[in-house]
Amino acid sequence: MDTPAKNLKFAVVGGDLRQIYSAIELADSGYEVALYGFDEFNGDIGLCTRCKNLSDALNNSDIVILPMPVSNDSVNLFLPMSDKKISLSELFDGIDKKTIVFGGRTECISKDFGIDIIDYFEREELVVANAYLTAESAVGIAMGELKESIKDVSVLVMGYGRIGKALCNLLKGMGVNVYASARKRRDFAWIRAYGYSPVDTSKVCDIVSSCKVIFNTIPELVLGEETLGCIRNDSIIIDLASKPGGVDFEAAKKCGLKVLWALALPGKKLPVSAGRAQARTILDILEDMEVM
Amino acid sequence: MDTPAKNLKFAVVGGDLRQIYSAIELADSGYEVALYGFDEFNGDIGLCTRCKNLSDALNNSDIVILPMPVSNDSVNLFLPMSDKKISLSELFDGIDKKTIVFGGRTECISKDFGIDIIDYFEREELVVANAYLTAESAVGIAMGELKESIKDVSVLVMGYGRIGKALCNLLKGMGVNVYASARKRRDFAWIRAYGYSPVDTSKVCDIVSSCKVIFNTIPELVLGEETLGCIRNDSIIIDLASKPGGVDFEAAKKCGLKVLWALALPGKKLPVSAGRAQARTILDILEDMEVM
Amino acid sequence: MDTPAKNLKFAVVGGDLRQIYSAIELADSGYEVALYGFDEFNGDIGLCTRCKNLSDALNNSDIVILPMPVSNDSVNLFLPMSDKKISLSELFDGIDKKTIVFGGRTECISKDFGIDIIDYFEREELVVANAYLTAESAVGIAMGELKESIKDVSVLVMGYGRIGKALCNLLKGMGVNVYASARKRRDFAWIRAYGYSPVDTSKVCDIVSSCKVIFNTIPELVLGEETLGCIRNDSIIIDLASKPGGVDFEAAKKCGLKVLWALALPGKKLPVSAGRAQARTILDILEDMEVM
Amino acid sequence: MDTPAKNLKFAVVGGDLRQIYSAIELADSGYEVALYGFDEFNGDIGLCTRCKNLSDALNNSDIVILPMPVSNDSVNLFLPMSDKKISLSELFDGIDKKTIVFGGRTECISKDFGIDIIDYFEREELVVANAYLTAESAVGIAMGELKESIKDVSVLVMGYGRIGKALCNLLKGMGVNVYASARKRRDFAWIRAYGYSPVDTSKVCDIVSSCKVIFNTIPELVLGEETLGCIRNDSIIIDLASKPGGVDFEAAKKCGLKVLWALALPGKKLPVSAGRAQARTILDILEDMEVM
Repeated sequence: MDTPAKNLKFAVVGGDLRQIYSAIELADSGYEVALYGFDEFNGDIGLCTRCKNLSDALNNSDIVILPMPVSNDSVNLFLPMSDKKISLSELFDGIDKKTIVFGGRTECISKDFGIDIIDYFEREELVVANAYLTAESAVGIAMGELKESIKDVSVLVMGYGRIGKALCNLLKGMGVNVYASARKRRDFAWIRAYGYSPVDTSKVCDIVSSCKVIFNTIPELVLGEETLGCIRNDSIIIDLASKPGGVDFEAAKKCGLKVLWALALPGKKLPVSAGRAQARTILDILEDMEVM
Repeated sequence: MDTPAKNLKFAVVGGDLRQIYSAIELADSGYEVALYGFDEFNGDIGLCTRCKNLSDALNNSDIVILPMPVSNDSVNLFLPMSDKKISLSELFDGIDKKTIVFGGRTECISKDFGIDIIDYFEREELVVANAYLTAESAVGIAMGELKESIKDVSVLVMGYGRIGKALCNLLKGMGVNVYASARKRRDFAWIRAYGYSPVDTSKVCDIVSSCKVIFNTIPELVLGEETLGCIRNDSIIIDLASKPGGVDFEAAKKCGLKVLWALALPGKKLPVSAGRAQARTILDILEDMEVM
Repeated sequence: MDTPAKNLKFAVVGGDLRQIYSAIELADSGYEVALYGFDEFNGDIGLCTRCKNLSDALNNSDIVILPMPVSNDSVNLFLPMSDKKISLSELFDGIDKKTIVFGGRTECISKDFGIDIIDYFEREELVVANAYLTAESAVGIAMGELKESIKDVSVLVMGYGRIGKALCNLLKGMGVNVYASARKRRDFAWIRAYGYSPVDTSKVCDIVSSCKVIFNTIPELVLGEETLGCIRNDSIIIDLASKPGGVDFEAAKKCGLKVLWALALPGKKLPVSAGRAQARTILDILEDMEVM
Repeated sequence: MDTPAKNLKFAVVGGDLRQIYSAIELADSGYEVALYGFDEFNGDIGLCTRCKNLSDALNNSDIVILPMPVSNDSVNLFLPMSDKKISLSELFDGIDKKTIVFGGRTECISKDFGIDIIDYFEREELVVANAYLTAESAVGIAMGELKESIKDVSVLVMGYGRIGKALCNLLKGMGVNVYASARKRRDFAWIRAYGYSPVDTSKVCDIVSSCKVIFNTIPELVLGEETLGCIRNDSIIIDLASKPGGVDFEAAKKCGLKVLWALALPGKKLPVSAGRAQARTILDILEDMEVM
């Protein structure tokens, strides 16, 4: 089987724009898609159908897609585009045992609900896609902040994981002079092969003074007081690391440095692509499960 | 002589941020620079000196740099960063005949003032530098507007002049699928050589429906009712053509299309680079004049 | 009319591989194509037809395509793929007055023959296409000669005309550090905008010692004794300038420098693309002539 | 400690050009380097010293660098640039127990010699550097073989390991349309993020007919009779997979396909960069060992 059977019915329930665009992508791929929890969205929903009641959405569906995160408080569904509230217990009670349920960042959902949620965000392919979208959004933010051409300045990318790699690739393509920081020699070899300038993460203080944009992707305190002290006043620091972030924000403030802590960019800035990637990943999983 | 004599004194009078950064660049290059007309600017002025009176700035200067445009109304100096007013006649009365005067877009300055203004904006090198800065700013705007990755969409660049060339080059480097419209076969040959997809400007209606971003650089009505009718509702049109622009704005409104008419981008978005390019061009001109 | 009428018949007579691939391209585009003068070619000729006699090829044709150059000696047709000889007078006697005749570099063909030859090589679009092919071939040659990665070295491109532009674009895309030499300030502005390092052609001696590959595209003696003296022994000079070339070959020999004088690269190295570009240009011309 | 102590003495013994350039790089970095086993090399050896006898080279050295491979037959040293023979037992007898010995592909060297050889080729950073050099060499080979511009054709890269990644990156930068084959969904995500076209390795037969160049990097029989049957006659297959290679060579021959089996490219084509990478890796290892 190449793609999941086309007669599958999906319910997309709750979440932000990314969920809507995920639903539209599924509908564009030929599936029947019911939407619930988007009262405040007035835009185009393509071939999807809006449901008035949660039960209408759930009852006829083979597959339910919950948002990322499923819940912010482990009690209620994440429902930012509606003025209603749906508790997780109400939601899960309405889902038939035969239904396949997807969600993102599901680790805080109690097992007591007795529902198996497949976490699409644990799939490496979605993480990679989001890493690229994060990188592109972050570059867009930097371009909006900079008062000079990004080609005229040096840019430091801290950390050579997924987001770091995607940032370096995009910036290099734009003709930017890129420093990439890493700790492992194998990463330095790739950094050199791809034409970036390698710098040891523990020694970025040697070069930060020449960088007008600094992207951090490392989820550890890597930009502490000492390094911050070396950064130019007119530089921009964009921290992409999840909480607690990689920057000593207090110290940065004292130094008069501009720090943008930019989290969850794909959903906020590029929801169409993020939704599309989510839908594609869900179809991949269903294909791997050989769902008919 | 390689560069103008370092003991030259400059007065930078009026204009926007670009003038300030032009002044800073000149000061960084070792010249003495007096500033006037920037009361409302609180930022760093580097090694420049602020003057309290116009006459202080003008009296000791070998060279006076006026803004682009010198004037918006042919009567008063363009002075957006001050609450004062300076009439052109007052200004020119205060300038010694031996002083070299620079300005941008000087065609509307009456010859009656008896002042020869060298128009730096007539220099091809500055026009090219600004074309690149316009392109980069415009791409930044598109990235800020798009809800999906610019790598997922096709982009049309209308017109293969300076700005068009710079747009195509930058977009291609970012991995974007670029259509470039032109009219001349020689342009098509370059477009193909550089890996863009050529399209005849008169036939863009054939492909606009597949483009989510359309940049226009042609200062003629090229996006009329018929072509606009083929453009998707969720596409973004960025018109970079100077007045009257290249888009039938009325018709676009009727079609529900989003059109951004983005003019004078270098000064607004990238004033540091724009000022630097202006300063460099002025030094080039002085070098060519063999000014001591 | 969009493309020339499909019932046109072509005769492709004489020349090298480029002519054969030009013929194949025309046949692939749906035209009837007769070949003559390629006895020594055993490869695939696609949908073309070989003729046994020159007259068979010429008699039924609306259009005759002669090679570039049409002749090397102004007496006989350029016929490198045959052991026969065809004099220009014999050839032109066999061509009906109504036939449209194309050829390349036709300036040395006597007007006395009474034949109007349309010179496809005077078309800017073909010159540009060949410039790109020259650049790509030259980069291939450099890669074959270099004992180290082209990304590890600096490369100098002398002259920012068509071939120079194409070289810089390709090399930059490969991640190479490119110096581009020019004389005009407007060229420097583009060179900077595209991310190459500008250098004044008259001052390349300042930087040649750091370049392991030097491409010359300027048809003047720009690499004389003095500059050659600054070039490293293990550097490669590739002269792409037509006769008399841009290098003092005697002086280079004395300095022990490796100079490759690489002429007519598109036809030699990339005949398929060169032939295709030639065919496309001929069809463009016919379209512009509104030939039925 | 940042770099190994500068008073270390190296002996570089046996091997090909890569060893010589590795020695030159070490000498350029400030170390004393003795060479032995390169009688047939007449080129520049920089600041290295040639030794007349093996013992002269070995006796004064803290570190001995043997080639990759150390031996082709497990009996004698790999000594392609000399007419002499050195048996491994003779060699190892001459090496003091305190000496640090490096070599490449050391798995077939008997433990009985009682010598610990540090295998620099097991270091990921050298493997990555060589992967990039392999990719660049392979692209150079393809460019030398192709009769048309590499930008005019589609290229398939089979396998998305190190060499595959490096190939895709370089080709994309040159503006080539790249298909990348892989098996894992995470690889597809990267392939899409970087702008290549993903194709499942088991389904390349669907697209090979549109590719004029096919690089294989997978060390398994992936190009069997069936797939070979779909490949165009004028396509070029470059097999970079180590023995037994990834192509059914017999079947390819029957199909009249051109297959180049290109092994050990870095040492053959780019010995300067390969030697430099080897030297750098050895210094990295010494630094990690905190050798004084």
